[in-house]
Amino acid sequence: MTRIDDVARLAGVSTATVSRALRGLPTVSDGTRQRVLEAAARLGYTASPSASRLAGGKTRSVAVVVPRITRWFFSTVVEAAEEALHHAGYDLLLYNLGGRERTRQRLLHTTNLHKRVDALMLVATPLQAADVAMIGKLALPGITVSSGTDVPGWPSIRIDDVAAARTATGHLLALGHRRIAHICGDGADELAVSTHLDRRRGYLAALADAGVPADPRLNVEAEFTIGGGERAMTELLRREPPPTAVFAASDEMAMGAMAALRQAGLRVPQDVSVIGIDDHDLAGVVGLSTVAQPAAEQGRLAALALLRPLRDGTGHHDGADPVILPTRLVVRESTAPPPGS
Amino acid sequence: MTRIDDVARLAGVSTATVSRALRGLPTVSDGTRQRVLEAAARLGYTASPSASRLAGGKTRSVAVVVPRITRWFFSTVVEAAEEALHHAGYDLLLYNLGGRERTRQRLLHTTNLHKRVDALMLVATPLQAADVAMIGKLALPGITVSSGTDVPGWPSIRIDDVAAARTATGHLLALGHRRIAHICGDGADELAVSTHLDRRRGYLAALADAGVPADPRLNVEAEFTIGGGERAMTELLRREPPPTAVFAASDEMAMGAMAALRQAGLRVPQDVSVIGIDDHDLAGVVGLSTVAQPAAEQGRLAALALLRPLRDGTGHHDGADPVILPTRLVVRESTAPPPGS
Repeated sequence: MTRIDDVARLAGVSTATVSRALRGLPTVSDGTRQRVLEAAARLGYTASPSASRLAGGKTRSVAVVVPRITRWFFSTVVEAAEEALHHAGYDLLLYNLGGRERTRQRLLHTTNLHKRVDALMLVATPLQAADVAMIGKLALPGITVSSGTDVPGWPSIRIDDVAAARTATGHLLALGHRRIAHICGDGADELAVSTHLDRRRGYLAALADAGVPADPRLNVEAEFTIGGGERAMTELLRREPPPTAVFAASDEMAMGAMAALRQAGLRVPQDVSVIGIDDHDLAGVVGLSTVAQPAAEQGRLAALALLRPLRDGTGHHDGADPVILPTRLVVRESTAPPPGS
Repeated sequence: MTRIDDVARLAGVSTATVSRALRGLPTVSDGTRQRVLEAAARLGYTASPSASRLAGGKTRSVAVVVPRITRWFFSTVVEAAEEALHHAGYDLLLYNLGGRERTRQRLLHTTNLHKRVDALMLVATPLQAADVAMIGKLALPGITVSSGTDVPGWPSIRIDDVAAARTATGHLLALGHRRIAHICGDGADELAVSTHLDRRRGYLAALADAGVPADPRLNVEAEFTIGGGERAMTELLRREPPPTAVFAASDEMAMGAMAALRQAGLRVPQDVSVIGIDDHDLAGVVGLSTVAQPAAEQGRLAALALLRPLRDGTGHHDGADPVILPTRLVVRESTAPPPGS
């Protein structure tokens, strides 16, 4: 059994330096780190996470839970969180629920997270009373990202979904649209949180403010995906009369709607205007107007908030109010006044 | 300390059923599983992964390593792998390297993977001799996805990158283009594997086959991202004369190139044709011609291949030849004959 002393001797450094180098701390020069890694590899030495946990109470890993890693918002949050954690010497263990409730249950109730990680970040993960009770027993520091998933005593980072939806709908109203459809997130989704409800509420509030009656036939539920937006738009085009503008609850849905409009021989924005929420990496490529939310910033701030109790050793937060990050309207080519105006 | 017997008594089932229910095996009915989960939650019981490892030698987790989770190919592979692993009762632990060599080194040499997971999937992760030696010592079943990252004795799943690039370039040649640029993956990327080299080789081979001399000034390296494609296209437009067609090494780069062309006031395909490789979810939305690769299928097959040695208890593969999945040309609106032809 190779010990840390053997690695230190072969690399010609102290055991403390070996430990720092192997944990990836920035206080070690690249040359020294390389020497330590080579010595460790040659001797087949790996630091035991259980041993370092016994020594310092730490696995130096943080679990991040997301509903679907293929969606832009979640992969962007994860990558930004990973970068911030990495700089502090922590690994990110990602649990992707793949949109399945059963995976969520198994993760929270049987995975023994408190032995695997030092902290927990739940991104848009729905929680019932039994889940919150179980999470309380884990006694880990944690944070939630997005609304509708609060854990008592944990901080939370999110945008104001109602306000973002009001802004998007208000932009269409200001252009002169009155027949405005909404492609809403799916309430039948196994892992739905309150995001889709909040965004619909903002849409309805903007219509009410403008004195425009809401037509329930222009409100279609769909998956938060490109395919979901495509199917919902195809359905909306069968309404009589069809909408002159569409507010989709995410940019991926909005891009799906644009694809359906093109297949139907309709032009964006001359025949139908489209707006989303997100500012997806590809929104600029397809000229999509949107309400931008700072996804990477939410991931980065969530990671930094998690690191605070880990660093100061208290292991818990001071339970501050939710951090609400600002959103902003980005007008591109997909929105214009209604036809004939 | 709550024991499995207590949970079994409260739920009114056998301890074997508790164990199966908590591991998420499909042999337990939803009603029984719910009862067991509630009993476990009420008693604060979690199965210990170390204990079940001692009992069955299993953590029931598989590590998947990707360079950047924000890129379409990697998130698609991960989600498909996760789904296949989930059905077999395994968790997926994702390690995102965030494009950093240092994270790769720390993961392979210090994370003690063999105590955390039962198997390892390396997706487009570069490996040096010391890494391969370390991986051999882990004695875990493993698989690599994409070319240029082989581990002796491990199976590998990939496409033929040279052939895919020949197909893309051949399509542009067949349309009559002769001044064809290539936006190539970045050899200076800290985590570059051989993908970008293979795709450039296919581009050059197609030109040579057609008797078209390659102009090195039309070959620009860029990150495998939208921004990378955008910057490379801007650079290519300064060449005299500029290209009439561009083959980008990925769809994300191709979409970035389309954005740069639009900003320069040029039309796709009337002024410049663009083709990529991937068949990204949004390729249809932007009308991008591409050579489709089955990303989800690569993730699914890799997971199934990993599960085989875990199920039959041998813990190792029979070291078969790489599985090469087919690619196919998808012609959409972004490619046409050159201007004036």
